[in-house]
Amino acid sequence: MKVTKFGGSSVASAEQLKKVLAIVTGDSSRRFVVVSAPGKRNNKDKKVTDLLIQFYNAVVYKQETDEVVREIIARYTEIAAEFQVDKHLEKTFQTELQRLQENYNQADPYALDSFLATGENLNAQLVAACFQKSGINARYINPKELGIIVSNEPQNARILEQSYEKIYQWHDSAEILIIPGFFGYTVDGQLCTFSRGGSDITGSIVAAGLKADLYENFTDVDGIFSASPKYIHDPELIEYATYREIRELTYAGFTVFHDEALMPAFKAHIPVIIKNTNNPECKGTLIKKNFDDENRNEVVGVASDDGFCGITIGKYLLNREVGIVRRILQILESFDIGFEHMPSGIDDISIILRERQLTREIEAELMKQIEEKIQPDQLSIEHGLSVVALVGEGMRERPGITSDSTAALARKNVNLRMISQGADERSIIFAIRSEHERLAVRSLYYTFFD
Amino acid sequence: MKVTKFGGSSVASAEQLKKVLAIVTGDSSRRFVVVSAPGKRNNKDKKVTDLLIQFYNAVVYKQETDEVVREIIARYTEIAAEFQVDKHLEKTFQTELQRLQENYNQADPYALDSFLATGENLNAQLVAACFQKSGINARYINPKELGIIVSNEPQNARILEQSYEKIYQWHDSAEILIIPGFFGYTVDGQLCTFSRGGSDITGSIVAAGLKADLYENFTDVDGIFSASPKYIHDPELIEYATYREIRELTYAGFTVFHDEALMPAFKAHIPVIIKNTNNPECKGTLIKKNFDDENRNEVVGVASDDGFCGITIGKYLLNREVGIVRRILQILESFDIGFEHMPSGIDDISIILRERQLTREIEAELMKQIEEKIQPDQLSIEHGLSVVALVGEGMRERPGITSDSTAALARKNVNLRMISQGADERSIIFAIRSEHERLAVRSLYYTFFD
Repeated sequence: MKVTKFGGSSVASAEQLKKVLAIVTGDSSRRFVVVSAPGKRNNKDKKVTDLLIQFYNAVVYKQETDEVVREIIARYTEIAAEFQVDKHLEKTFQTELQRLQENYNQADPYALDSFLATGENLNAQLVAACFQKSGINARYINPKELGIIVSNEPQNARILEQSYEKIYQWHDSAEILIIPGFFGYTVDGQLCTFSRGGSDITGSIVAAGLKADLYENFTDVDGIFSASPKYIHDPELIEYATYREIRELTYAGFTVFHDEALMPAFKAHIPVIIKNTNNPECKGTLIKKNFDDENRNEVVGVASDDGFCGITIGKYLLNREVGIVRRILQILESFDIGFEHMPSGIDDISIILRERQLTREIEAELMKQIEEKIQPDQLSIEHGLSVVALVGEGMRERPGITSDSTAALARKNVNLRMISQGADERSIIFAIRSEHERLAVRSLYYTFFD
Repeated sequence: MKVTKFGGSSVASAEQLKKVLAIVTGDSSRRFVVVSAPGKRNNKDKKVTDLLIQFYNAVVYKQETDEVVREIIARYTEIAAEFQVDKHLEKTFQTELQRLQENYNQADPYALDSFLATGENLNAQLVAACFQKSGINARYINPKELGIIVSNEPQNARILEQSYEKIYQWHDSAEILIIPGFFGYTVDGQLCTFSRGGSDITGSIVAAGLKADLYENFTDVDGIFSASPKYIHDPELIEYATYREIRELTYAGFTVFHDEALMPAFKAHIPVIIKNTNNPECKGTLIKKNFDDENRNEVVGVASDDGFCGITIGKYLLNREVGIVRRILQILESFDIGFEHMPSGIDDISIILRERQLTREIEAELMKQIEEKIQPDQLSIEHGLSVVALVGEGMRERPGITSDSTAALARKNVNLRMISQGADERSIIFAIRSEHERLAVRSLYYTFFD
């Protein structure tokens, strides 16, 4: 049995929904369907969720709402009309939006969550109606009924462990259940949404709860590519990847989805496949805990991300002074700043961190405190760094990968600010200057692919 | 003007002392001579300092001392006789040892220091007498008279800043001054010795104080080699090295001398040369702050050291949890354990430290505390690691060195536990399994030398 999730662009129009219908009916094991809110139909289009934010703002700041309500309703009725769904659904949706407007009249995170979730919630009802009209035994189910119980954290809800048992009770449902993604309810019945990528999270939770054989994540790309198309023309599709490989790739900049969204499925060891609604024949990317040797990647991909900086602290006999690094980290911590890597020489240490954690003021204060409390011989900060990661489960079995990759970077005169090879040897992480990011990704990609 | 220091083997016999005499008289700029205590004349011989420890033990534990006193005196009289030095010097030395025996009668670190320093102190007097007998205008000077003022830390004295000005007052001494190495006096006149390598420290301090043009360190090897003869047959001599290169090489296992011994000279930017008393024609190893491009090393040497271990801690989202690494270091610190490197992956971090800091009990308690306070998903310790360092000032200008070295290691199937490239890019440090140390050093050496 499979849990099948469709992203915003897969449910953006009647035309798209027909593809969804074909996909679901094409495989009788597809019994649970999770849907996003309708996304953009073209580049100039708006996502329904963005319209709902507009609606929310108009409501809480007491502005005109008719126009935006019309726009939202139109997105659903356009699809409903094509599937010849009963007119009364439009009424229901209108009542729903009206209820939101009446119940909330000031800005507050719970109110926002109720508006945000409406996009998915109405869409699941619409999709269920369209499926029924097409003769499929499907029905909408609300996350509360399904058993998605979450922590009381608006826009950042976390699933509670007790949900899984409740969800499992639905595992032999005779009907195909259409589930709105993106939200759940607290123990007290309060609606809360997940963080971004929320429908992926719902799908992942439902798959874990139902102990599904596969969690299918349908999107508008063929799968995950071994490098960003931003840097590589027509990069290779990753056919097989492990959870861990995906985690390392997304850490270092892959943005197909947020790896944490898949965590519930990963933890339950449910295989995940990324597929394209617009090209369902394509194999997609299959993600599992382990693969046999045959399908194990030596190198699975090259990821990169900019926006890092490095603070370098030099002090004679630094490595003999027990506690000095702990004191440096304590200073960072007092600013609530985390770090990514900490390469060290003999009398120096560099701290690589995400630049977004620093404002100009925080940086000045941070450097001042390091200067005062650590009294280094040398202290500097370098902005504009990127992190490039070469990832692959099979790397640990072939020591040559490190030298092949450093050689590739050296040939292009990419200077390395740091090399880090984690204990598990599933990735090599390089820190470089951001102006070399493109060059670095390309030289590594063409060393291991094509 | 040069300060010239002779190590124990250079002053072990009359034959050796004749070489010293020839060296000093061969260059009129050699005006300050620092001497160690007589070392071994052959493999079965004893160092005078070891005899003095024996003497000390006999005195404080009230045992027979005649034999050891005879042995000590014999070492000096043998040389004195060859240089036809007046017999009254033997008397002076006997009186000196007798005085020690009378003044100290129980074990205490200051007593030990007074015994230890006697080897150098008598030797400087002997060398001065031999020089005078050879018609040289030389005289013995006591460190107190010279102005070597140290902290009150027996066996671990540190030089006090005020010494340098006092020492400088001797800079235009008409006589060649013969200075015993290894000790100084506190402000209150208490004799304290430096840590091991103490005569090197004295020479280095005197050179810094006098603002010498060169500090010559005469020993029994031609200089510093680019790799240990333990692993490489007939390794290349390093002709030029920077202070920093020497510091990195000694950190990673080079033991020609302790780099901290040279710190006073380094700080005062005094060039240092390591030369061979037995082969003074050999150029030796010149160590300076900087070199012109011509003499700058791309790679200066390969050093290695065993006795490291690595603690690996894995925890999902470790890099997001601000403060977690600080808490790990806090645990280490509570055991007074320092670390050398901390390579990190995405959800894991390894801590490389010197194994000698752990007993079986401390290790068990340390791991228990990490388990309890950090609650990692994965925790392990790997013993038997070595650190191999490839060092060279010119490395930063040639990105290819990293790939050449990792390729060399890969060809020999040396698996890398860690690669660390410090911010200053003067070294690349590898952690490997100790059983691969020989192989690693050899493959790196033959990649960059010969």
